[in-house]
Amino acid sequence: MTASSSSPSLAERLRHDEAIVTAWSSLAMPMLAEALGRSGYGAVTLDMQHGQHDIASVREGIAATRLSGAHSVVRTPVDDFASVSRVLDFGAEAVIMPMVNSVDDALALVGAAKFPPMGARSWGPHRAAMLKGESPAAYLAGANRETLALAMIETPAALAALDDILAVDGLDGVFVGPGDLSLTLSAGAEVVPGSDRVQTVAADIAVRTRAAGKIAGIFCNAAEDARGAQKMGFRFMAHGVDMSLLMEAAGAASAVLD
Amino acid sequence: MTASSSSPSLAERLRHDEAIVTAWSSLAMPMLAEALGRSGYGAVTLDMQHGQHDIASVREGIAATRLSGAHSVVRTPVDDFASVSRVLDFGAEAVIMPMVNSVDDALALVGAAKFPPMGARSWGPHRAAMLKGESPAAYLAGANRETLALAMIETPAALAALDDILAVDGLDGVFVGPGDLSLTLSAGAEVVPGSDRVQTVAADIAVRTRAAGKIAGIFCNAAEDARGAQKMGFRFMAHGVDMSLLMEAAGAASAVLD
Amino acid sequence: MTASSSSPSLAERLRHDEAIVTAWSSLAMPMLAEALGRSGYGAVTLDMQHGQHDIASVREGIAATRLSGAHSVVRTPVDDFASVSRVLDFGAEAVIMPMVNSVDDALALVGAAKFPPMGARSWGPHRAAMLKGESPAAYLAGANRETLALAMIETPAALAALDDILAVDGLDGVFVGPGDLSLTLSAGAEVVPGSDRVQTVAADIAVRTRAAGKIAGIFCNAAEDARGAQKMGFRFMAHGVDMSLLMEAAGAASAVLD
Amino acid sequence: MTASSSSPSLAERLRHDEAIVTAWSSLAMPMLAEALGRSGYGAVTLDMQHGQHDIASVREGIAATRLSGAHSVVRTPVDDFASVSRVLDFGAEAVIMPMVNSVDDALALVGAAKFPPMGARSWGPHRAAMLKGESPAAYLAGANRETLALAMIETPAALAALDDILAVDGLDGVFVGPGDLSLTLSAGAEVVPGSDRVQTVAADIAVRTRAAGKIAGIFCNAAEDARGAQKMGFRFMAHGVDMSLLMEAAGAASAVLD
Amino acid sequence: MTASSSSPSLAERLRHDEAIVTAWSSLAMPMLAEALGRSGYGAVTLDMQHGQHDIASVREGIAATRLSGAHSVVRTPVDDFASVSRVLDFGAEAVIMPMVNSVDDALALVGAAKFPPMGARSWGPHRAAMLKGESPAAYLAGANRETLALAMIETPAALAALDDILAVDGLDGVFVGPGDLSLTLSAGAEVVPGSDRVQTVAADIAVRTRAAGKIAGIFCNAAEDARGAQKMGFRFMAHGVDMSLLMEAAGAASAVLD
Amino acid sequence: MTASSSSPSLAERLRHDEAIVTAWSSLAMPMLAEALGRSGYGAVTLDMQHGQHDIASVREGIAATRLSGAHSVVRTPVDDFASVSRVLDFGAEAVIMPMVNSVDDALALVGAAKFPPMGARSWGPHRAAMLKGESPAAYLAGANRETLALAMIETPAALAALDDILAVDGLDGVFVGPGDLSLTLSAGAEVVPGSDRVQTVAADIAVRTRAAGKIAGIFCNAAEDARGAQKMGFRFMAHGVDMSLLMEAAGAASAVLD
Ligand SMILES: [Mg+2]
Ligand SMILES: [Mg+2]
Ligand SMILES: [Mg+2]
Ligand SMILES: [Mg+2]
Ligand SMILES: [Mg+2]
Ligand SMILES: [Mg+2]
Repeated sequence: MTASSSSPSLAERLRHDEAIVTAWSSLAMPMLAEALGRSGYGAVTLDMQHGQHDIASVREGIAATRLSGAHSVVRTPVDDFASVSRVLDFGAEAVIMPMVNSVDDALALVGAAKFPPMGARSWGPHRAAMLKGESPAAYLAGANRETLALAMIETPAALAALDDILAVDGLDGVFVGPGDLSLTLSAGAEVVPGSDRVQTVAADIAVRTRAAGKIAGIFCNAAEDARGAQKMGFRFMAHGVDMSLLMEAAGAASAVLD
Repeated sequence: MTASSSSPSLAERLRHDEAIVTAWSSLAMPMLAEALGRSGYGAVTLDMQHGQHDIASVREGIAATRLSGAHSVVRTPVDDFASVSRVLDFGAEAVIMPMVNSVDDALALVGAAKFPPMGARSWGPHRAAMLKGESPAAYLAGANRETLALAMIETPAALAALDDILAVDGLDGVFVGPGDLSLTLSAGAEVVPGSDRVQTVAADIAVRTRAAGKIAGIFCNAAEDARGAQKMGFRFMAHGVDMSLLMEAAGAASAVLD
Repeated sequence: MTASSSSPSLAERLRHDEAIVTAWSSLAMPMLAEALGRSGYGAVTLDMQHGQHDIASVREGIAATRLSGAHSVVRTPVDDFASVSRVLDFGAEAVIMPMVNSVDDALALVGAAKFPPMGARSWGPHRAAMLKGESPAAYLAGANRETLALAMIETPAALAALDDILAVDGLDGVFVGPGDLSLTLSAGAEVVPGSDRVQTVAADIAVRTRAAGKIAGIFCNAAEDARGAQKMGFRFMAHGVDMSLLMEAAGAASAVLD
Repeated sequence: MTASSSSPSLAERLRHDEAIVTAWSSLAMPMLAEALGRSGYGAVTLDMQHGQHDIASVREGIAATRLSGAHSVVRTPVDDFASVSRVLDFGAEAVIMPMVNSVDDALALVGAAKFPPMGARSWGPHRAAMLKGESPAAYLAGANRETLALAMIETPAALAALDDILAVDGLDGVFVGPGDLSLTLSAGAEVVPGSDRVQTVAADIAVRTRAAGKIAGIFCNAAEDARGAQKMGFRFMAHGVDMSLLMEAAGAASAVLD
Repeated sequence: MTASSSSPSLAERLRHDEAIVTAWSSLAMPMLAEALGRSGYGAVTLDMQHGQHDIASVREGIAATRLSGAHSVVRTPVDDFASVSRVLDFGAEAVIMPMVNSVDDALALVGAAKFPPMGARSWGPHRAAMLKGESPAAYLAGANRETLALAMIETPAALAALDDILAVDGLDGVFVGPGDLSLTLSAGAEVVPGSDRVQTVAADIAVRTRAAGKIAGIFCNAAEDARGAQKMGFRFMAHGVDMSLLMEAAGAASAVLD
Repeated sequence: MTASSSSPSLAERLRHDEAIVTAWSSLAMPMLAEALGRSGYGAVTLDMQHGQHDIASVREGIAATRLSGAHSVVRTPVDDFASVSRVLDFGAEAVIMPMVNSVDDALALVGAAKFPPMGARSWGPHRAAMLKGESPAAYLAGANRETLALAMIETPAALAALDDILAVDGLDGVFVGPGDLSLTLSAGAEVVPGSDRVQTVAADIAVRTRAAGKIAGIFCNAAEDARGAQKMGFRFMAHGVDMSLLMEAAGAASAVLD
């Protein structure tokens, strides 16, 4: 399956309430991103925060994901707003900013992700337009609608400010981080993303996000978490970290003689 | 032509009102930067904002440009002041900071680009000194004068603050971004860098910059823009993006049989 | 334009007497290969003999070319038969072996390029099959017909053995090297690929190759050489070396003020 | 588990009839090799023939495998005897040469893999000695015994010459390639490594190899093949290609909602 | 010597008042970091501020240092708090932030370096845990104690705020930069790290740091500086920059015939 | 010191009996080669046989060495004649082929290293000509004289054939490998390059090489070996391996407190 420029975008599909499962690419190797995209995922998210990706591997990984026909998404490092614009220039269809804990954080994200008048993204999307097979003018016309800015909600502060964050014009949705939610809700005591407490909070975020007419995404450690999230109203589910997928499969294969 | 340490620096040449055309290196390949430098350009600007360059490619690209005999310049990502110091440490002769919209932005640029007492650049220029064939002490003595800090003027806010920005001690000049000017002046409606409106603004920037005794640079999409800019008083003209140069030439060559 | 698995292959197109112009990629940067493929060329040839390519850049460059929709071809180093198989495993649609001066050379090329019983290519084309969107079994069924082995004819010895070389089963065609032909025909005195002597020899090679029912390709320095080659009967014309295309265009752009 | 210099070597373990399962690293990323080594495998084989590895990725991948505590093995390209010595210099504990079809091929392998008087390996193992924590003199004393030269048996010609190949002094063992055996035994008609014909041949190779007092290894596509091979007398079983392990696991994870 | 997970950590050793000499890795090559670690150093510090390191080279360099058995430390660029978390995720045992000039700077460092409730470090240390051979839960339990946050004291502002900086909970110690101290104390006039003025200030910092119960580190240009620093109470001494070590040794070796 | 195109070539200097000391670059990092070239060496030899260099690092390392002003030399892997031509195309001024044990080996080296009529080197030296600042025609005119083909003499077979090897037209000289000489003369028992036996043989090689009017080079482990070699008549002395230089210096620096 190869995406043509007439295929629906990730933004379109999510706005039409389609559920999309994204792979989580932590390893800085473009061909692995392509392989994930060829394995059934609708999207591949390249992780620059906790994963191994850097500017070079994201630049190449977005093209490799395109070759697979999957949508490409990038999670940037915390507060790295310059990289938000850069990865969109490279052709990412969505960007996930971690630790958006306030309206100011959300505004900064929109500022970097959206062209004027919505934001202050600087002009230079030639690589992205090339990958879409569009002219620069066509890219400009569609960009603010077709490239998604997603804010991670993963702390008590973010929960407290959630409705205001959701009201920020240009913010397309949220992405829940259950690991950090567990850590921050427990004041550093544990990381149990599947706990009742975290899942209850997640469900609430989904409801409020959908009520605000925005996209709800979430990181899912276990398969049942992904199915549960879909029921909660989430539509953009991350499930499957490349390193874990490989090591679990390798653990089984290496034990073939036992 | 290979630059020796006794050749005039980019700073010296621009302060003597010499017109310099710089190539625009968007592709993260050092040998391409060298090739641009060998093709007649006075300088090669490595673009980390909208181009594909990262720390590694800039680090190598500056040395490759040095081998060509051309001056090396780097445009950093927005607000990435840490990289300002880093690329100067790698041997860039000038740094261009995008989206300098206020005196505070300009002060932050000078802070990162100039050693005390003018700024707060941290000590560690051994690679730059090696490329210049200088001792560290000699490098220190000349650095604040010989390495240029250029602020991009490309928004209404920057235009409003222009005279104050130009008054910032240690800021060596400005660099006009006609694409973003067009985008921001039209509130996101268009990118027409050659429009009368943008060109009129550019000419005004040139006049005010020269009046302040500083260097005026500009990005030029078309050949006539470059010649026009020179007449307006600009002296540092970017003209020729590697990717576009290649693709246009390739488009013609591939059509050889038609 | 993105090639789907149902598009005609390079082999099919050349066997149907279609004329194909290939870019010549000498720079070891995958995105440049993609850019060439997006500029109008039917194919991109990655050069490991005199160009800068190595195994890693060819591995990535073939995928990048695929993304552009162009066919990918690789010229290997002299006598590097192991790389013949490797680049086919990576998904190259044709391989060009330089300095095929004897039937033995041609047999070695076929041995490396074709599966049994035609040759002795070893099994392991999973990456190539992935890029074609084929199962391994389907790849096996088509490989000997769909991947081309082209022998460079560029010395007096090759000319003397030409008919026997052309008679080697599994050799799909020849590729003329006018530079080396000029050098070897002049006993090292000159490299004038457009000389009458070289062009006369080239024309003769085209005639004999077509008479043998095989594909005739040639490297063309000048545009008129490419058009002349087409008239001689060549159908696979290389025209446009990335480095030269860039440097000529850069030379013109850098002189914008003169 | 981190290997110390006093851990038994791969050679020792195999000579003591211990069964070792090796991962098959086809992707040119050192950290993936390390991850395979941490997943339970006794060894990691880096594949330069059909995999994506090149000199640089093998050089780094051997160190990464060392960090995991697993043994490192390299399969070189066909007839690439220079690389045999190079990967041993980099610290590989065994080298697998594909397509050893004659005594001459086996002698060339031994020539490259063993120091005089057994072979003609050239002196320069400083990196390998560093990774082992040995002095160069200690490395020399043990190298011919501690680094394994394994010949792939995968064609009718190799089968015909098997006893003579096994008699070559310095050849430590064989490694069966069922895919190529299937292809060559069927004259190019099929690749069915698990067929009765291939498995019968494999069992015969195991018996004759053990009779000659040498090590028998084999590539195993399916888990039952690996267990069957152990019963046949094989002790060095490759099972689990990184790319396949990842894609199968990703295929399952991406279908979480279905 | 290979570090096992039961070896004492860098934090433990420094808290037990052990003196540790760290190499200074300025060159972005992982194997050089490993070589430094194998040469007798207790730790290797990878420098992203003035050195050539970037995210990719640090990611690989930490693993390479681990292979050598030495502790790994990273100095980040100025104000690059996102990288503080990233390099800890990659497995660095300590992070050095340059230009910590205020309590706010110190708080930001702690925020990025420590998990809640001490800081706001986000959860994702799987690579670091893998390198330590720990489960994620065990990593969480020890992380805030076992990974060090060190603040560079190198300006008059930092000196003025020193006691308050030292009082910041979660800040593990300071690292003195004599080069920048010399530069800033002289208002840009000189860089003489061994001057009496600088050394007197350094001694005072050591005393106050130890009084606050924290770790004192310092960069030492000359051997006598390192010995002097130990006497002043410093315990983490950087001495030996890879590039200088190499060039001085090469200068001597190249003059062998003179 | 930067080499200009009018500086004497390495070939010229050696033919005028000038003694040149070359660094030995084993680490695949171009900037280290440049650093060696800036440290006083006349030349830098990039080692692809036992060192870590590959095609990519040699391609970049030659340019980096050029930037330093030193001459660049490459030692290729054993029998890798394709790489002989490639590294000359990249701009190496000399190539050293290991294990030249017969006249046939020497002829193959000359075949790859020299243009017709002397050899069969294929045409494509555009990068080398660019680095020299020459036109392709000028490069052709000088290449066979200005690029050196050096054969390693390091086995009893080579010693036996030495006079015939020296008589091969186009072979510019020999390079003695005392390590392998020691190993092969002792039938694998030892590597003692400074032994009387090896040094006596080396001295004899120097005499016979000079008598044949050719260049004599040698690898020198110890400083006294280099001085001794010069007295024996050698003029191209390798002394100083980057890894050893670094590790010895690091060993001393890390012990600063002891
Ligand atoms: Mg999180
Ligand atoms: Mg702009
Ligand atoms: Mg040719
Ligand atoms: Mg096989
Ligand atoms: Mg400092
Ligand atoms: Mg040798």
